Amino acid sequence: MPATRKIRLGVSMVGMGYHLAAWRHPDASAGGNMELQHFVKTTQVAERGLLDMAFLADGVGIRFNDRPPGALSHTCKNVQFEPLTLLSALAMVTERVGLVATASTTYNEPYHVARKFASLDHISGGRAGWNVVTSATDMEAQNFGLDGAPAKGGRYDRAIEFVDVVRGLWESWEDDAFVRDKASGVNYDPAKLHILNHQGEHFRVRGPLNVQRTPQGRPIIVQAGASDQGRELAAATADVVYAAAQTLEDARAYYQDVKRRMPRYGRHPDQLKIMPGLMAVPGRTRQEAQDRYQVLQELVQPVVGLGALANYLGDLSEYDLDGPLPEPKDRRDHSRGQIFIDMARRNNLTIRQLYLSIAGGNGHRTVIGTPADIVDAMEEWFHGEAADGFNILPTWLPGGLEEVVEMVVPEMQRRGLYRTAYEGRTLRENLGLAYPEHPAAAARRAALSQALGSAAE
Amino acid sequence: MPATRKIRLGVSMVGMGYHLAAWRHPDASAGGNMELQHFVKTTQVAERGLLDMAFLADGVGIRFNDRPPGALSHTCKNVQFEPLTLLSALAMVTERVGLVATASTTYNEPYHVARKFASLDHISGGRAGWNVVTSATDMEAQNFGLDGAPAKGGRYDRAIEFVDVVRGLWESWEDDAFVRDKASGVNYDPAKLHILNHQGEHFRVRGPLNVQRTPQGRPIIVQAGASDQGRELAAATADVVYAAAQTLEDARAYYQDVKRRMPRYGRHPDQLKIMPGLMAVPGRTRQEAQDRYQVLQELVQPVVGLGALANYLGDLSEYDLDGPLPEPKDRRDHSRGQIFIDMARRNNLTIRQLYLSIAGGNGHRTVIGTPADIVDAMEEWFHGEAADGFNILPTWLPGGLEEVVEMVVPEMQRRGLYRTAYEGRTLRENLGLAYPEHPAAAARRAALSQALGSAAE
Repeated sequence: MPATRKIRLGVSMVGMGYHLAAWRHPDASAGGNMELQHFVKTTQVAERGLLDMAFLADGVGIRFNDRPPGALSHTCKNVQFEPLTLLSALAMVTERVGLVATASTTYNEPYHVARKFASLDHISGGRAGWNVVTSATDMEAQNFGLDGAPAKGGRYDRAIEFVDVVRGLWESWEDDAFVRDKASGVNYDPAKLHILNHQGEHFRVRGPLNVQRTPQGRPIIVQAGASDQGRELAAATADVVYAAAQTLEDARAYYQDVKRRMPRYGRHPDQLKIMPGLMAVPGRTRQEAQDRYQVLQELVQPVVGLGALANYLGDLSEYDLDGPLPEPKDRRDHSRGQIFIDMARRNNLTIRQLYLSIAGGNGHRTVIGTPADIVDAMEEWFHGEAADGFNILPTWLPGGLEEVVEMVVPEMQRRGLYRTAYEGRTLRENLGLAYPEHPAAAARRAALSQALGSAAE
Repeated sequence: MPATRKIRLGVSMVGMGYHLAAWRHPDASAGGNMELQHFVKTTQVAERGLLDMAFLADGVGIRFNDRPPGALSHTCKNVQFEPLTLLSALAMVTERVGLVATASTTYNEPYHVARKFASLDHISGGRAGWNVVTSATDMEAQNFGLDGAPAKGGRYDRAIEFVDVVRGLWESWEDDAFVRDKASGVNYDPAKLHILNHQGEHFRVRGPLNVQRTPQGRPIIVQAGASDQGRELAAATADVVYAAAQTLEDARAYYQDVKRRMPRYGRHPDQLKIMPGLMAVPGRTRQEAQDRYQVLQELVQPVVGLGALANYLGDLSEYDLDGPLPEPKDRRDHSRGQIFIDMARRNNLTIRQLYLSIAGGNGHRTVIGTPADIVDAMEEWFHGEAADGFNILPTWLPGGLEEVVEMVVPEMQRRGLYRTAYEGRTLRENLGLAYPEHPAAAARRAALSQALGSAAE
């Protein structure tokens, strides 16, 4: 009997939690975004909850304009640890939870990225994941000699080749290349070293990578793009996708579209786990859950709410907060902006109501209720071809995650929807993904099997 | 009474130790260069020995040609952990020892480097150091779209500006910029945020850095350049220099030259600690020390010895191993090559004798003897204006370092030349270097003091 399909869970560790006012929560450590112990605690809670992975979003620069003035200095999304260094440290205080770091393909070199994630995979015993992003903001571009971000098409063209080079570098050494025979003095078998010699439109990279093949064969690749180019990149290369959707219909359309694109890359739909963001706020009663959420909602200052909208819709501070959302005149080319506009139109929201509706989940689905309510909501999408799992967006950290682990996870387990122990040692094993055989080893195996077949004829 | 000047000690953790045959040592873990526990043990031994810092050399690519063929596959200098990820992990299993990672200014962007070292400094509680290198090999260049390394002058021009940008980014936030007042919702004081807006010949970087000012104010800067450009960069910016010299005269000339260049950058010579490499091989008797060294010398295969010479002098495999060193026809522009030639000429060495003489220290000073012999040798340079301390190059790891910690350190302590406990929590404190006041805070303090002076008149 095949194992029942289980819901996958990740957690986003950005800021002090996903809610705009997270750092002001009465029980939060206000400076936790720069405190190592805050992240130690958070990843340990994630592991206690048997989550597949803890995920660190990232920007190569502050990604938010101070618009309206004061917006930036009233949030905590200004400073943070660099993800690869932080997750390497956290690998030492956790055993099983996956560690997914964001790295930009627009402002990096593939050789560095290949090395760092390979190194994290070794350090963590096979728990590394790379969240591939193309860095959309002009603020980041200005830290790398540009006036603004390159156009989306160009960024994605580069990203596709970038991922290709990184994957090629990860195959520099076969699994058993290192003999390390002290007696003969042979350290590696030269036949099992493969020089990449990549020559492409954006990159010329000789290789080999100076890191041994990693415990997962290669680190897990995560993608979050919602645009057409993002979907294509995900279908071609991703093991996990973090999606954003508010409704079952949108989530299902996205899910089916991405999975339908996979066969053209020779991939089976099961090889990609789609995990939409989910802000889950549990309470023993619905009222308790609402009260918990309301504590944070009341801490959202107008300048911060307007700042959150300004990232996608431009500065709206000249309009009446309690009036309707005007047609945005400074809209950025970002799918999140459209989600916000749809939310406002669908529910006839004022500007204040709109920023309060996104203050928690920033456009991701939000479920506030009993553990049963939350797991019902998960099941609907999980069984409705809309999700393989969820990327939990805790309101604040670590408390909001502790609530999910203590209340929601047991309900998922009770229904047989979630693991009761980690299945494997590596992130890949826990995600139920196969170990990627080295292409040269696969070719040798195929040749041998053909030769044996011919001999038998 | 002022504290007596103490000898500083660092340790190089490259490969499986500095000796070419380190990985073949009978007690070594042959694959330790890719084993996390090997490095955990090594840094913990360094900390037991109260060393200032553990240092990880690095190349962005394999830096050794397979010349003569087989040279590469018979050494372990082919794969390694990426330094910033590894040292972040090691920060979690050590308390006091400094953690110095190498990063190239030629193939990186200053924003990434500034972030990653700032992050490591936070993770380690103020123990991060950046070893600034310009990456001399063509093999590294070929991983970044080039056919060969840029000329040295250009690399150093870029390095000088690069370090300047990184230091500017590290001053994005004043020490007390983050108010994090939950009641008012003010996270930081905008007056204490400084946008760099760097526009230079090689870089345009707006800033600010998205990492809070670090426990050391800024990470320690380490340099190892021996050339004129390297010395100038060290005099201008370095806190620590790893030098390479064989003789007291050469070491003293280097020491005095670099320190003499400092005042033109407004720096006092005490602000830079010069720590030549020292391969120290202790034994209870001189014979025991020699025997220990001989174990490794006998494991050096000719192909590996020739390979080590080939990096600097070209492939000499067509010559008689037991004949004299010919005039090199394929010499690389590297100061280490000249050291090798001088060694051969000074002692009339055959090719085999030359590679055996560099098999351990690779051109660095080597002292094989009793702890008293080794500390005598240290004192000669330390009191002879040739060294502020030493970068210990263990023959193999962790054993070669354990011998130094167990035999040499106690002798240094007995003579009052070395600490008996760490003086501070940060690398900067342990090196006896002052905390760098933020320039804006310094300017405010100066203005205030002037205003008070005027008022008193």
